[in-house]
Amino acid sequence: MSGEVTDAGLLSPGRAGSPAEAATGDTAFLRAMLDAESALTRAQAAVGLAPAQAATAVSAAADADRFDVRDLALRARAGGNPVIPLVADLTAAVPADAAPYVHRGATSQDIMDTAMMLVARRTLDLILADLTRTEAALARLAAEHRDTAMPGRTLTQHAVPTTFGLKAAGWRSVVLDARDRVRRVRESLPAQLGGAAGTLAAFGAYPSVPADGSDGSDGSDGSDGTLGERLVSAYARELGLVAPVLPWHTLRTPIADLAAALAFTAGALGKVAVDVLTLSRTEIAELVEGAGGGSSAMPHKANPVRSTLVVAAARRAPALAATLHASMVAEDERPAGAWHAEWEALRDLLRIAGGASHHAAELAGNLRVRPEAMLEHLGLTHGLIVSERLTAELTPLLGRARAKELLTTAARRTRDEGRSLAEVLAEEPDLAAVDLTELTDPTRYTGSAGTLTDRALERR
Amino acid sequence: MSGEVTDAGLLSPGRAGSPAEAATGDTAFLRAMLDAESALTRAQAAVGLAPAQAATAVSAAADADRFDVRDLALRARAGGNPVIPLVADLTAAVPADAAPYVHRGATSQDIMDTAMMLVARRTLDLILADLTRTEAALARLAAEHRDTAMPGRTLTQHAVPTTFGLKAAGWRSVVLDARDRVRRVRESLPAQLGGAAGTLAAFGAYPSVPADGSDGSDGSDGSDGTLGERLVSAYARELGLVAPVLPWHTLRTPIADLAAALAFTAGALGKVAVDVLTLSRTEIAELVEGAGGGSSAMPHKANPVRSTLVVAAARRAPALAATLHASMVAEDERPAGAWHAEWEALRDLLRIAGGASHHAAELAGNLRVRPEAMLEHLGLTHGLIVSERLTAELTPLLGRARAKELLTTAARRTRDEGRSLAEVLAEEPDLAAVDLTELTDPTRYTGSAGTLTDRALERR
Amino acid sequence: MSGEVTDAGLLSPGRAGSPAEAATGDTAFLRAMLDAESALTRAQAAVGLAPAQAATAVSAAADADRFDVRDLALRARAGGNPVIPLVADLTAAVPADAAPYVHRGATSQDIMDTAMMLVARRTLDLILADLTRTEAALARLAAEHRDTAMPGRTLTQHAVPTTFGLKAAGWRSVVLDARDRVRRVRESLPAQLGGAAGTLAAFGAYPSVPADGSDGSDGSDGSDGTLGERLVSAYARELGLVAPVLPWHTLRTPIADLAAALAFTAGALGKVAVDVLTLSRTEIAELVEGAGGGSSAMPHKANPVRSTLVVAAARRAPALAATLHASMVAEDERPAGAWHAEWEALRDLLRIAGGASHHAAELAGNLRVRPEAMLEHLGLTHGLIVSERLTAELTPLLGRARAKELLTTAARRTRDEGRSLAEVLAEEPDLAAVDLTELTDPTRYTGSAGTLTDRALERR
Amino acid sequence: MSGEVTDAGLLSPGRAGSPAEAATGDTAFLRAMLDAESALTRAQAAVGLAPAQAATAVSAAADADRFDVRDLALRARAGGNPVIPLVADLTAAVPADAAPYVHRGATSQDIMDTAMMLVARRTLDLILADLTRTEAALARLAAEHRDTAMPGRTLTQHAVPTTFGLKAAGWRSVVLDARDRVRRVRESLPAQLGGAAGTLAAFGAYPSVPADGSDGSDGSDGSDGTLGERLVSAYARELGLVAPVLPWHTLRTPIADLAAALAFTAGALGKVAVDVLTLSRTEIAELVEGAGGGSSAMPHKANPVRSTLVVAAARRAPALAATLHASMVAEDERPAGAWHAEWEALRDLLRIAGGASHHAAELAGNLRVRPEAMLEHLGLTHGLIVSERLTAELTPLLGRARAKELLTTAARRTRDEGRSLAEVLAEEPDLAAVDLTELTDPTRYTGSAGTLTDRALERR
Repeated sequence: MSGEVTDAGLLSPGRAGSPAEAATGDTAFLRAMLDAESALTRAQAAVGLAPAQAATAVSAAADADRFDVRDLALRARAGGNPVIPLVADLTAAVPADAAPYVHRGATSQDIMDTAMMLVARRTLDLILADLTRTEAALARLAAEHRDTAMPGRTLTQHAVPTTFGLKAAGWRSVVLDARDRVRRVRESLPAQLGGAAGTLAAFGAYPSVPADGSDGSDGSDGSDGTLGERLVSAYARELGLVAPVLPWHTLRTPIADLAAALAFTAGALGKVAVDVLTLSRTEIAELVEGAGGGSSAMPHKANPVRSTLVVAAARRAPALAATLHASMVAEDERPAGAWHAEWEALRDLLRIAGGASHHAAELAGNLRVRPEAMLEHLGLTHGLIVSERLTAELTPLLGRARAKELLTTAARRTRDEGRSLAEVLAEEPDLAAVDLTELTDPTRYTGSAGTLTDRALERR
Repeated sequence: MSGEVTDAGLLSPGRAGSPAEAATGDTAFLRAMLDAESALTRAQAAVGLAPAQAATAVSAAADADRFDVRDLALRARAGGNPVIPLVADLTAAVPADAAPYVHRGATSQDIMDTAMMLVARRTLDLILADLTRTEAALARLAAEHRDTAMPGRTLTQHAVPTTFGLKAAGWRSVVLDARDRVRRVRESLPAQLGGAAGTLAAFGAYPSVPADGSDGSDGSDGSDGTLGERLVSAYARELGLVAPVLPWHTLRTPIADLAAALAFTAGALGKVAVDVLTLSRTEIAELVEGAGGGSSAMPHKANPVRSTLVVAAARRAPALAATLHASMVAEDERPAGAWHAEWEALRDLLRIAGGASHHAAELAGNLRVRPEAMLEHLGLTHGLIVSERLTAELTPLLGRARAKELLTTAARRTRDEGRSLAEVLAEEPDLAAVDLTELTDPTRYTGSAGTLTDRALERR
Repeated sequence: MSGEVTDAGLLSPGRAGSPAEAATGDTAFLRAMLDAESALTRAQAAVGLAPAQAATAVSAAADADRFDVRDLALRARAGGNPVIPLVADLTAAVPADAAPYVHRGATSQDIMDTAMMLVARRTLDLILADLTRTEAALARLAAEHRDTAMPGRTLTQHAVPTTFGLKAAGWRSVVLDARDRVRRVRESLPAQLGGAAGTLAAFGAYPSVPADGSDGSDGSDGSDGTLGERLVSAYARELGLVAPVLPWHTLRTPIADLAAALAFTAGALGKVAVDVLTLSRTEIAELVEGAGGGSSAMPHKANPVRSTLVVAAARRAPALAATLHASMVAEDERPAGAWHAEWEALRDLLRIAGGASHHAAELAGNLRVRPEAMLEHLGLTHGLIVSERLTAELTPLLGRARAKELLTTAARRTRDEGRSLAEVLAEEPDLAAVDLTELTDPTRYTGSAGTLTDRALERR
Repeated sequence: MSGEVTDAGLLSPGRAGSPAEAATGDTAFLRAMLDAESALTRAQAAVGLAPAQAATAVSAAADADRFDVRDLALRARAGGNPVIPLVADLTAAVPADAAPYVHRGATSQDIMDTAMMLVARRTLDLILADLTRTEAALARLAAEHRDTAMPGRTLTQHAVPTTFGLKAAGWRSVVLDARDRVRRVRESLPAQLGGAAGTLAAFGAYPSVPADGSDGSDGSDGSDGTLGERLVSAYARELGLVAPVLPWHTLRTPIADLAAALAFTAGALGKVAVDVLTLSRTEIAELVEGAGGGSSAMPHKANPVRSTLVVAAARRAPALAATLHASMVAEDERPAGAWHAEWEALRDLLRIAGGASHHAAELAGNLRVRPEAMLEHLGLTHGLIVSERLTAELTPLLGRARAKELLTTAARRTRDEGRSLAEVLAEEPDLAAVDLTELTDPTRYTGSAGTLTDRALERR
């Protein structure tokens, strides 16, 4: 394409160059539409609705390199979808005797929806591979840092200690949740075939071709459901997609399921990334992205670029999923707008989730953990980070009211005098027998973090 | 509550008076929070962290009627959530010796999230019941109208015939898809228990109580995961919720799954409703809501009110689900904002889906079908609605080019002269031998609609 | 309140108890609907379509205390909106001779939309007052801290210094932008009056009443636009709203404008709040919310609750605005769903923006600034925070290539050796003449921050 | 571009080939970034911060044809934005003595945001032109059909008559509202210039160049606001953008304003389109898109393709605007994610609104109105469409109760017996003196539709 470039990824560092980008580009969609058209003809040949030669000819002609994406895009305006000009070009590209069998009996939406499912499946496979790389890296981090204590933070404030192992195990668990949801959707993606209004009527209206073998002898009238079933099965089999019970032109379950799984994936990865961003802050620096982005003017900067781009993805995905959910309200046998609104939204969502998965795998694989910073921060509140523990431990000794009063006073003195809580409490005669050093050691108050991490890592 | 009423449903005909409304009201939430608090104490008693009497006392005091919802709401401002004042009031309501065991070791989010899950479960049950009523009614309609032909419409225009049976079977299939998704989420709803930062540490910090029986003898230090596991299991069991592997304070899988299932449900019902709206139009009138809403000034009007309210629900749900998906990006061990943004959004979504399910069940149960109008409309295009069939049938007779030319001319004449396509074609000598009446009968061109309907109805 | 409470704010600490909550409650809506009804009768009296006594009687009866909100809510289900039962009750509440004049000629949407505008106007006034309090507090902070240096942070990392004055001035500028947008919408809110399909026809169909004065002698046929204009003007004047050129039943400019202004407001306040959250982190602590929320179990915690609730509001508003924007696509003379989807979404958005404004005013008015922490953090990178300046200053001295090489080496040594950049550079003979202490002093590299702050504060 | 095509519009018939597509393509963004870079150098030359020759050299080198969009896109991954590689390439493209002045003192966001504003301004101009074409066509339709009666429809049902003139005037009024909002934003778009953290500090750190004239003698220290002001003014002037009071790196008013105006535009056009879709239905056919899209298999079909694509646009815009509104919550001096999430969302929104405007102008310019169908439909309810009028007119004659009873009965008989309301009422002796033909003529009950249309058309 010479001259003006519509979109080559200039605004899209979140997915530029990623496998998911290639899998969802216009060339990939063109290829998927052609795959659907050729599978349709082969399926018709298989059930006796087209001669085998026609199937061979259409399959041969359905070569994406022969078609001009931009030209198809421009001609798509007239009828509102790219299948119409594509069918014209494909018909022109086959020998005259095969021409009648191109797209025969189908509707544009059969091809467009099927192509969407093919593109989705290929992209989901890439996403699954990246989620697997991500969870494996997180599993390693969690195991390695099973007992690395760090501050637990709630509403931006230190609460009680936790471990980086538990945090990484938690990240992994949502990544695995994403994987499971993506997998489930991936296995359910259906082919689309219904004809003009979803009754498969045209497939029964054309005569069967003389049978080459044993398979072409039925299907001679418009009401034979059996032929329809066999055709849909053959078509789905050709494509490696699920054969649906009903055409789903306006029953948008597959689209809504994709929306949910992809928004989930972006959100799960966004959780990981937002934690990395927080823990990468100059003042915190408990984590460092392995390969930070530089700044031309400020040589000292190492920006958490991967996390930034993943969070950006997670900010965009929910709205796109909302558009797809809204398109479930699709009137009639084909809606005027709801369907058309899906195409770019779904493609964007696949790209966003695909790009985020790719960045997340790099992020997880290269993350540097700084236990020394975590340990240092555990001391920032001079022991107050374990005040919960002291409340628990001192109550049996002193009674509830006295324990509370003592701790409140000690907390205030700790803050005001800049001394450690252990030191302040040590002045209290009632606590002479208590091992305050152990009790106020944040690394000894991580609760079940270790065993929770162990259990979480058992999940495969 | 005297004086100003915050919200009693005045702007909410979509859910006012529905079971889902009651199940999600502030009283229901208060009750669920109290259920969580009392289950927590009972669970602690079960694993030896609290005396049995404390559990009994807390359970007795956790009676919603004793608490003032509005007062709690106002006091929730200070700390940002209603659990803080609730715990204060509950503690005040139990005998002094039980007081220390109220909420012990827990964090506000443990109670709030668990209450959300309890409310969600109860509401999902109501939704499931309504979806079941709806699909049963739609199954009856589909069976009854298996062979009722009607125009298939695409992009607002008549395309080819379909049947009302197939349409109703399609509606049912998305309702069943919604049911399956709601069921799956319903079975997965977890209790929440993690303590201040998700490590369960405080539960290990308090001493065990002298064992009444055989169960209370361990759990004496803060790192015993086994105690934690047993406590979480006991707590979940008390509540009838799933025991999670990890606390999910910032791993928001359950919320995202609810969002997806509820948005799906609203969308599925919205599909049914938008079709009813279209087919109820004065000019179409193929369907009539059994009990239409009246108009004060226009006695002739019977508005499709159920469908309208269901469509309104479907317009609102995706955005609320988007807010919940966005909240997956929850930083730290408890986020400052993402969690708080979930509460009303999830409640609204439960109500919207619950209200829509209720209206949809009424809608499906009372829908009146007018086959005579469907039949009449099949004739509106004077036979052109079966032009696809004629293309298919005449091509073998006349050759492709001649068939196309003939039909294009005939279509134009049909439109211009207001005669039927059969009549125009009958003037064509080449077609003398063809049974044009049969070929142009829209009711004979419904393809696999019947068998598709049959297969779809096999699904349970 | 006995029995089940639908919503008294238990899940809504973001707005519970705020003036905006009361202004948007069901009681407020009921009152606004009654205001619309009585204004309509008075307006009809003014133009000779109703006797003055009827207007007096309707106005007297339109007392919200006499109506049962919950009962109206439940009866609203039948017709899909609360105006229908309200008109029935209002009609029953007036003397028989006034009854025919209740709601005469109007449609439910006339009343509902007008009530929305009344509620919106009252709430916007509250929001404006809070935005004014907020900007005044921020102006004080900006002036006071005009020269308080602090780290400028980009992508979570220290970049170059800035000032807290400039930050607060920036906050104020978006708050003023919000104020301007809210004001503009507030001044444009129109009354709604169109009758059944927006033609004002019914107002011309009823006979004029015998004129008390000079005004009632026209309006005798259905096509008199002049009467319509006068009626709409009188109605709008009674309500203090703008008289629209056209009924806007399906021309939803006012709703979309409200959506945009309210989402803007929530976003603007969210910007302030997210910065407070970041700067309140335990490790940063450059800002402290004046009155932090406590934690029952952890006496040392002071959570930034105001900021948290404002950020939660900002997370919810955009999706609600999206629902309202989507409702612009409103078919026919009254849409089946798009209108109904607006009511709760708009009310929620008013509440969210109103609650956020209230919290933000408290937040801004009580914010504590810790310049000593800011200063300390400027030193965290040992001088690297001014590396941009050194690049600029050394280039003329050393040449570009040499300057860059020198700084890159020095930056690495600074990080690795934990020494200050000034110290490292001082070892460089070429820089003997340079005042490195001044050049590496972060407080001397705040650029135009001071004058930018001054200029920004000139805005009123 | 050989090989895989990322996006050439194949899935985007809503904007493929439109002027807005070209104005928002990657090439256009590249050009805008280069415009920003060269304007920056020229502005620096103007205020004495760069030699004139450097400005000339940079401006000459900033030729989009010399840069490789895809290569920039791929290299943008490393640092997270395309400005970083662009600056490298631009620096390499200028003579050595100009190289130091490329991008000097600026940050990536200065260029990226400014480029966004340039692209936005150019696209808004295209949108404004299309909105003007659209409103002019609608004005013609409204004037021509000022008195063309048609059914007013509410909640899908005939309510009372209206006119097509009033409908078209209403469409025009929201299109004008969109125009006004787009214009306002277009006039406010600011340049962005703040340097690394928005303080303009680097511009003061570099020495002034020896003055060619009188202007280069100041700006020698980092705190001179005056230099900063002059620089920003010169930069904005070079670009034809507004000079902002403050850098707006995280004060996202311009983005939020664009979001609102563009979502409004899509919604306004969506209102027009959804009405055309409804009125184009086969059963209604009161409107016909001038150039309907065909169907390969069904020669009789003429799909309302323009309206479909406009409605699809209106379904997508609100969610994208929501993403942009959410990005207002941008932490620090540059956020990690919120900013990055804006780029594609804003571009998509510009394209969606731009494409929709283009289709809408074609739609409005070619719309065919079928008054005969409108008239026929006014009779569909056999006179019941004017029942509101009869209620009004008969009440004074018969009393309220009797009138109501009579009409209810007559309405039922009209429906049941398929006779006209006039005929049924004529049997009523009490109405002997009434001209029922006139009273039940729908074309005589259009109220103020004519004068409302006239007034609305006065707006320019």
